Amino acid sequence: MRYCRVEVEYRRWWGRVEGEEVLLLTGSPLTGAPEPTGGTVPVAAARFLPPVAPGVFYAVGLNYRGHIEHARAMGHPGAAVPERPEVGYRANNALTGHRDAIVRPADLQGRFEAEGELVAVVGKPLRRAGADEAREAVFGWTIGNDVSAREWQHGDRTLWRAKNSDTFKPMGPWIETEVDPLAQTTEVRVNGELKAAFDTGAMVFDPYEYLAEMSRYLTVHPGDVLWMGADGTCEITAGDTVEVAISGIGALENPVVEDEPIERSRR
Amino acid sequence: MRYCRVEVEYRRWWGRVEGEEVLLLTGSPLTGAPEPTGGTVPVAAARFLPPVAPGVFYAVGLNYRGHIEHARAMGHPGAAVPERPEVGYRANNALTGHRDAIVRPADLQGRFEAEGELVAVVGKPLRRAGADEAREAVFGWTIGNDVSAREWQHGDRTLWRAKNSDTFKPMGPWIETEVDPLAQTTEVRVNGELKAAFDTGAMVFDPYEYLAEMSRYLTVHPGDVLWMGADGTCEITAGDTVEVAISGIGALENPVVEDEPIERSRR
Repeated sequence: MRYCRVEVEYRRWWGRVEGEEVLLLTGSPLTGAPEPTGGTVPVAAARFLPPVAPGVFYAVGLNYRGHIEHARAMGHPGAAVPERPEVGYRANNALTGHRDAIVRPADLQGRFEAEGELVAVVGKPLRRAGADEAREAVFGWTIGNDVSAREWQHGDRTLWRAKNSDTFKPMGPWIETEVDPLAQTTEVRVNGELKAAFDTGAMVFDPYEYLAEMSRYLTVHPGDVLWMGADGTCEITAGDTVEVAISGIGALENPVVEDEPIERSRR
Repeated sequence: MRYCRVEVEYRRWWGRVEGEEVLLLTGSPLTGAPEPTGGTVPVAAARFLPPVAPGVFYAVGLNYRGHIEHARAMGHPGAAVPERPEVGYRANNALTGHRDAIVRPADLQGRFEAEGELVAVVGKPLRRAGADEAREAVFGWTIGNDVSAREWQHGDRTLWRAKNSDTFKPMGPWIETEVDPLAQTTEVRVNGELKAAFDTGAMVFDPYEYLAEMSRYLTVHPGDVLWMGADGTCEITAGDTVEVAISGIGALENPVVEDEPIERSRR
């Protein structure tokens, strides 16, 4: 099944994707077994929202060996292969949906990059779980673009504006519940041109190992998301369209636009 | 006004504190003007919940000069006075209410510490705001205890378990809407003994400066919280009761208990 959230005439709905149609649903598949309402919207015209608003937005940093080697080559000698699955965080304000604009801040300098990531959506509470229990607790899989401003990432004390400025976290277009995500390929395209491609499953630690380790100290809740890191990055700029596609799941596409200068838009 | 959230017979309510009573309300003061339902619970017997479940849980790291000097004295030479207000994050799973237990993980080693913090609760959306607009957007003020496991804080790549293990973020007991928080004193007591006391307002950057700077790149939403950092820390251990009191707001009190070993409690 492919579940999504869409906005129709200012109202938000859960939907199920069937072919070229989104069937609107009576409620959330995370908390029940919703039925079609009878309403539909075409996939081609739907306004997709991020498929979930997580209670906690978990994100894995370095999790692919190629990405770690790239970071070293770019002059970040601290980038080492993690010895343990230690999770990080992103912030909900940055989430935006399939086809929504990624807004490049007007005062941003240095490299502005896209990173294609597999995202686990949690469906059941997890506490002190093993990897098998973690596997059963995943509701499904979606796609994330971990948009990053490198100069802020390396110059600021935290990742706040480097990775969490508004619109820096496109997620979607939907949650696929019936795929083995680790047997897929992730591809990133800019204006249709392939910029990065990697085996989605070639991770240092897989999602089940992460969730099991996290659950030693914390409760993972239904609706929480876990972004699994990226291999390969590519530069993006205003006017581009960036697409992150994972085979078996779908393709998340977003245009990049330039923000207006702060002074002019100040209210 | 003092607004709180309480659980009464498995149901969650917003409440308004009047003397020794909590008056249950028809809804949230963050989104409307709720009326008393007529139901009450005594403050002394109320089961307090964290007063808000934030969409984004912002937290300031080093924000008091005394705390920065202490960190340096403890052998962390990287602790410098911040030149800009760069915000960090905590995670909702760790939130717990007034009088709930702080659970010390069974495998924790090294110093386990409490930090008393002022917390701003946002009431209006903020984007590209100045400090004056930020001041008007704060709904009220509550109290946080930024419980920290120092060995994990300095040994792990992220703050995930050091600061975000379940129960590591007590918040409450209520939101005070009519206080100047920067003219107050913060005190931390363990088993009734004063362990830390500092001027709440002696910050490197105040809440309005933080919110204004954050709003240059992101939208702060109603219900978001901003923890303002601590000066002075104190060690806590199982069997202790730790209290963080801010004059004009209230006192947040939590017992500390030892977790059962992971192997025995595994379900």
